Amino acid sequence: MSDDITILISNLSKLPGIGKKTAQRLAYYIISDKSDFAFSLSDSIRNAKKSAVFCSVCHNITTTDPCAVCSSNSRDKSIICVVSETKDLLAIEKTKGYNGVYHVLGGVISPMKGIGPDDINAASLIRRLDGSIKEVILATSLGVEGETTAMYLARLIKPMGVKVTRIARGIPSGAELEYADEATLSNAIALRREIN
Amino acid sequence: MSDDITILISNLSKLPGIGKKTAQRLAYYIISDKSDFAFSLSDSIRNAKKSAVFCSVCHNITTTDPCAVCSSNSRDKSIICVVSETKDLLAIEKTKGYNGVYHVLGGVISPMKGIGPDDINAASLIRRLDGSIKEVILATSLGVEGETTAMYLARLIKPMGVKVTRIARGIPSGAELEYADEATLSNAIALRREIN
Repeated sequence: MSDDITILISNLSKLPGIGKKTAQRLAYYIISDKSDFAFSLSDSIRNAKKSAVFCSVCHNITTTDPCAVCSSNSRDKSIICVVSETKDLLAIEKTKGYNGVYHVLGGVISPMKGIGPDDINAASLIRRLDGSIKEVILATSLGVEGETTAMYLARLIKPMGVKVTRIARGIPSGAELEYADEATLSNAIALRREIN
Repeated sequence: MSDDITILISNLSKLPGIGKKTAQRLAYYIISDKSDFAFSLSDSIRNAKKSAVFCSVCHNITTTDPCAVCSSNSRDKSIICVVSETKDLLAIEKTKGYNGVYHVLGGVISPMKGIGPDDINAASLIRRLDGSIKEVILATSLGVEGETTAMYLARLIKPMGVKVTRIARGIPSGAELEYADEATLSNAIALRREIN
């Protein structure tokens, strides 16, 4: 139709998971809204982008440096949980079951996409292992790329005398066995634990 | 996490079809992007909202008034296709098979949601029927609300001596009969056409 609207639709369709049709629907929703929603959305994008920084310790996206987790006195700084993205960190925080700190890689090693060890925050993780760190939990995803990344990091860290662990692989809580894929199910059996 | 990021996530989750989790994913995508994408997205929302106006003739969302369709010399002004939203107009334009003009209602009559005839652009449609209009095509959706709206408009327009038509109801092109719902299928049989 017109230029400014076309530009908005084209920008919205660059967002992950947003196709041309959804972008169009969102654009018309934003424009048609009678309140000031369009302006407050526009401002909030600008403000968030301006105030967002990467934590210099763990690379978490934050508005303070170091981030809230790294600067907290109640967190156990001797355990580092390694995740690929900030959203994984948020997911773990939501469980309220983890009290250590994090390290955000900002991606996973993927030879297919040309992402190597130098393209993720691996070197800064190694620099953090100064002797005060007792354990590194590798919490990258359990797919090929997450596993490759975990294996790469484990091979670097273990010789430094730091305990390296991997998040458990198995059947999701509440899931039916029949819907689990073969790899998950065979792993769940192979990695079975004794009930005491 | 932090304020500006939380505000962005909350604003994004107000968009139709965007839940809390998707909003979070989009927010971190926007913030993490190394290019100026966040600023150009922010600007494009502001610009589109500022330059968007409703066409004073057909209520289409546009940046010029009258809109490109209403001000075109090659369109047949004697046929008005009535749609509920601008996105329906765009969908019909994409087919390149319609050469008349439009009237965007900006909604449909819905007693359930408290939307009455006065809340949609019905009065301005009636005002357009000045004798030069030969046909009004009612292209609201084929659900309950779209049908109610079409019936309401047909009852107003027909006594004025203007031909009123409704878009065809039937089996979608390329669709399998077995997947059509009962109402669609029985309508498709009842409204069957002779092959000449």
